[in-house]
Amino acid sequence: MNGRVYIVGAGPGDPELITIKALNILKSADVVLYDRLVPESILTGLKCELIYVGKEIGDAYLQEKINHLLVEKAREGKTVVRLKGGDPTIFGRGEEECIYVVENGIECEIIPGVTSAIAVPETAKIPVTSRLASPSVTIITATRSNGELITSDYIPKKGTLVILMGIHVIEELYGILLSVRNKDEPVAVIEKGTLKDQRVFLGKLEELIKIVKENEVKAPAIIVIGDVVLLRNKLQKC
Amino acid sequence: MNGRVYIVGAGPGDPELITIKALNILKSADVVLYDRLVPESILTGLKCELIYVGKEIGDAYLQEKINHLLVEKAREGKTVVRLKGGDPTIFGRGEEECIYVVENGIECEIIPGVTSAIAVPETAKIPVTSRLASPSVTIITATRSNGELITSDYIPKKGTLVILMGIHVIEELYGILLSVRNKDEPVAVIEKGTLKDQRVFLGKLEELIKIVKENEVKAPAIIVIGDVVLLRNKLQKC
Repeated sequence: MNGRVYIVGAGPGDPELITIKALNILKSADVVLYDRLVPESILTGLKCELIYVGKEIGDAYLQEKINHLLVEKAREGKTVVRLKGGDPTIFGRGEEECIYVVENGIECEIIPGVTSAIAVPETAKIPVTSRLASPSVTIITATRSNGELITSDYIPKKGTLVILMGIHVIEELYGILLSVRNKDEPVAVIEKGTLKDQRVFLGKLEELIKIVKENEVKAPAIIVIGDVVLLRNKLQKC
Repeated sequence: MNGRVYIVGAGPGDPELITIKALNILKSADVVLYDRLVPESILTGLKCELIYVGKEIGDAYLQEKINHLLVEKAREGKTVVRLKGGDPTIFGRGEEECIYVVENGIECEIIPGVTSAIAVPETAKIPVTSRLASPSVTIITATRSNGELITSDYIPKKGTLVILMGIHVIEELYGILLSVRNKDEPVAVIEKGTLKDQRVFLGKLEELIKIVKENEVKAPAIIVIGDVVLLRNKLQKC
């Protein structure tokens, strides 16, 4: 009999921000395929087979290998966990892997995780929505699957904007942002969010490129645009 | 010496979708103020003082009472947890309570939770972003703090749109949506997401009012608009 595949979100980096459900499934797993962004301490103590499938090696090839492994191990009757940083459906490709598994006749369930898109600003004392500042949040990835940049069609005129994977294309991204948003809007750049060596830089949208370049901001980093950034001052005890 | 306040997300409804961090903080709490949408089983076994502050009674008055209680209990030197459904910064007013606490000289930390805006569609097999369908997701609340409806400025032309608290104003909301989005776009309405008695209704945007009325959809319900809705068919084993 075939096993079962779970695509599981591990949360944004802080190992305590994983859910009870994810931990219980990990304990029942025979095999775990895990990503580069998954906190190590989550894996410590697991007695199952652990397979590292971080994405440094060569993307397209590796994705195919992961897909095959998920199906192969499930066909051996095993409980297979695919563990991803953040939430599997926020730019995690969880749904692509799940579709492949299901098309091969194997049951697959996606288990939500705390997404870094919300938790990273939150931990840096920036609530992504607020009655005081914004009734909406838009989360975008700067680079789309075809390698092209996001277009202004995906960016609303108002409301909080959270941008993932934008640092390496910051100049082109800035041009797109300015076609919709105001250069005076508050901006925050958060590097290594929720971790101990987190860095937070604040300014206005017109300073975005300067902030990233002068501080040599590296991925993973998240950009937040909108009035919610100003709430940070009120959320910190002086 | 003053105690400390934690504003904690309990997740979207399924009691297992709470984080380890939230559970650990709950175990250390002297007092827990909890909402209507918090799963009961999370509270079972806690030995601290439990105060129910669900929002049926009269909103403005109750919010003032909650704020005062948080400060009062912390001034008694207690560890105070304010437990909310979902994530505290996605329309949870977590930041408002935190600001009040901080302005009264008491330390306050917001602990992220799994938000229903992402986890409810995800559990209903609708990934809110996907390389196959959308490089963005916008989460909005239909009704803003001043009682007015959201405007089209907050709605991008493209990408996934997730709407919370929209059922009671579905006709007015529909008009605003149509001013930006296409009537042929796929739509899903998910009632009581992640719970056992969840109901999911699918159709096109032009059928939204009909879907809600004919099925007598009740809050809490989430509306999802965009091509990602179509992935649901591929994510389910036939």
